[in-house]
Amino acid sequence: MTAILRAGRRPAVRSGPIDEAFATLARRPEVISFAVGAPDPALLPVDTVAALAAEVLTEYGSTALQYGVTRGFPPLLEQARKLLSGRGIDCPVDRLHIATGGSGALHNLCMALLEPGAVVLVEAPTYGPAVKVFRSHGAQVREVGSDAEGMLPRALDAALADPDIAFVYLLPTFQNPTGRTMSADRRAAIADIVVRHGVLVVEDDVYTDLRYRGTPVPAFWSFAPDHTVYITSLSKTLAPALRIGIEVLPGELVDSVLALKQGIDMQTSAFAQAIAARFLAGPAAADHIDLLTKSYAAKLGTMTAALARHFPGEYRWTEPEGGMFLWLEGPTGLNTDALLGPALESGVAFLPGSAFFVEGAPNSAMRLSFAGAPVDRIDHGIELLARVCGA
Amino acid sequence: MTAILRAGRRPAVRSGPIDEAFATLARRPEVISFAVGAPDPALLPVDTVAALAAEVLTEYGSTALQYGVTRGFPPLLEQARKLLSGRGIDCPVDRLHIATGGSGALHNLCMALLEPGAVVLVEAPTYGPAVKVFRSHGAQVREVGSDAEGMLPRALDAALADPDIAFVYLLPTFQNPTGRTMSADRRAAIADIVVRHGVLVVEDDVYTDLRYRGTPVPAFWSFAPDHTVYITSLSKTLAPALRIGIEVLPGELVDSVLALKQGIDMQTSAFAQAIAARFLAGPAAADHIDLLTKSYAAKLGTMTAALARHFPGEYRWTEPEGGMFLWLEGPTGLNTDALLGPALESGVAFLPGSAFFVEGAPNSAMRLSFAGAPVDRIDHGIELLARVCGA
Repeated sequence: MTAILRAGRRPAVRSGPIDEAFATLARRPEVISFAVGAPDPALLPVDTVAALAAEVLTEYGSTALQYGVTRGFPPLLEQARKLLSGRGIDCPVDRLHIATGGSGALHNLCMALLEPGAVVLVEAPTYGPAVKVFRSHGAQVREVGSDAEGMLPRALDAALADPDIAFVYLLPTFQNPTGRTMSADRRAAIADIVVRHGVLVVEDDVYTDLRYRGTPVPAFWSFAPDHTVYITSLSKTLAPALRIGIEVLPGELVDSVLALKQGIDMQTSAFAQAIAARFLAGPAAADHIDLLTKSYAAKLGTMTAALARHFPGEYRWTEPEGGMFLWLEGPTGLNTDALLGPALESGVAFLPGSAFFVEGAPNSAMRLSFAGAPVDRIDHGIELLARVCGA
Repeated sequence: MTAILRAGRRPAVRSGPIDEAFATLARRPEVISFAVGAPDPALLPVDTVAALAAEVLTEYGSTALQYGVTRGFPPLLEQARKLLSGRGIDCPVDRLHIATGGSGALHNLCMALLEPGAVVLVEAPTYGPAVKVFRSHGAQVREVGSDAEGMLPRALDAALADPDIAFVYLLPTFQNPTGRTMSADRRAAIADIVVRHGVLVVEDDVYTDLRYRGTPVPAFWSFAPDHTVYITSLSKTLAPALRIGIEVLPGELVDSVLALKQGIDMQTSAFAQAIAARFLAGPAAADHIDLLTKSYAAKLGTMTAALARHFPGEYRWTEPEGGMFLWLEGPTGLNTDALLGPALESGVAFLPGSAFFVEGAPNSAMRLSFAGAPVDRIDHGIELLARVCGA
């Protein structure tokens, strides 16, 4: 049977622990899940989307169901421009592209930039599924030393000596998996280096509207606008199933990204884009983000209090100012890969730290999502987790 | 500025005449368009989709807005299985995948199968945008001699001597661009050859429900089920903007296609999939296809009558039994690339034959879509076209 696969196959890209966690959780809804970075289902705006869907079909009629423009549905492009301007990203609509989710934006960009042999630099730890995406395009992925603020400028400078670097992938704000935010000074230092080396940064910024305390830091884009592709999405603040991503591109990348988009999925759903445009244009977006930030802030507070209560001193965790995740590090020798089975057995789920490093070796860390689980189950979930850890 | 693009870029993939036609038509709605393969906007089921959207949000609640299963939304997988069974394609759900449109299915498959240097064999003429997709993955595309029934068995047999053939791309039913349908005998002959060579066929079958006369021919899949990837979509029979494609995979391809899907756009919109599932489960689908086939059959009849009236004997056209397109061939020496500008000027649009051949050289043919234009403008459009051709 394998005879039918005559051409070389892509480097094997297999399902990882995130997919397995989703599968297990789908079978066992009683498990308290700190595993996945999905919005709290109780907060998904079902009635709002129902109203918006009816409104856009009345307003736009068949245009909302037809093939559309590759770049994006014009009313959403305009709303995206305003949304980005509110984040200090001022750019014309002809530099924007509406993608099929943030993941669709990243994949489309990889189609334009990566060839076998190209190298992508990432933080350590970084968002594991992005590493799989880069590898699926034949790229090598290399970690650059990082601290509590993200990538280290000197380490990046040294790594950029390699001429095969295609881009540097950063999650500067409420990072997945650590929840940490890169300071403005660090952003400026990293920007200086990438501009000096003439290399591109891909800024993955999908949690930025979920800030619970502290002062917003300008997007990395604003420190190096000609050297940055900025990606955001509405999956965390509206609904994952609308699959709406927004991408800000340097001028020289626009044509190739849009030409490739036609071959990837022609265009992002005009229906979903019309719903998203109406959501952003009205008061619904601000109201909904207010609801999310209040709820998730309370969950984060509950989780850090529970960690302090149930975990002893040799455990450390990040205290993020926003987003969906914190990063728990246990004592040296703890193997969180080995703890995942027993944890699921006892009724709690997390993702082991290995999922967020390029080599994927077992380590003593884990990612905990505080956004998805009901607030009144978080303390018990952390208690179960502490028991499994032997803490 | 190009300094930021340090890695090798993909072979240049540029917008083609189809994209340009869309752009021109968007600016000039008064043009009678035979250019694009989009459903008649007057027939897009706006009220039906509005009702279905409201129903699925009531029935599934937040599940319709959340992240979902990579393979597809389970109720749609089940409806897809039934739809395919009605086409003689009996396969278990674990061989199916719900893609982001038919184009998403093809792209996802290319991610799994194509490497630079791989070769894809196509009919001549073939669907031009697919050629661009194959090239965007680094493949070479080669035409195989074809006649009024499609690819020629002997020519295919000879072409398959090359060990670098990744797959053979076929549009057996109501082909885009010619409208012709491959007979059952030809399908059997082609199937014998691909099975003997142990090579994969990709069957692109998105028009099959739009049959206006004649007897259905079994899908190519049923002649070589272990050697065929079957792709269909709901873009022509429900709505393009839902971006729903359905892919039937040989068992050995399922894991890699689904693992790559996670990196392409995570999963196809659960909201769109829920709407599609409900559409297929109820009477709406059959009713809507009945409406479409009646309307498009009348348009096809109007167009062929107009061609007979306005074009002289040295012009030939196909008489398709279904789909959206017919293929008009003029006398030797006619250059349809050169006629496109004057045609748009005079108020009618078509796509030149060059868009459907690998080399893209100007030729004497053109693709005419009869589905999109209002029926009462078709005769006048063909009359304008005849004048532009000097016919």
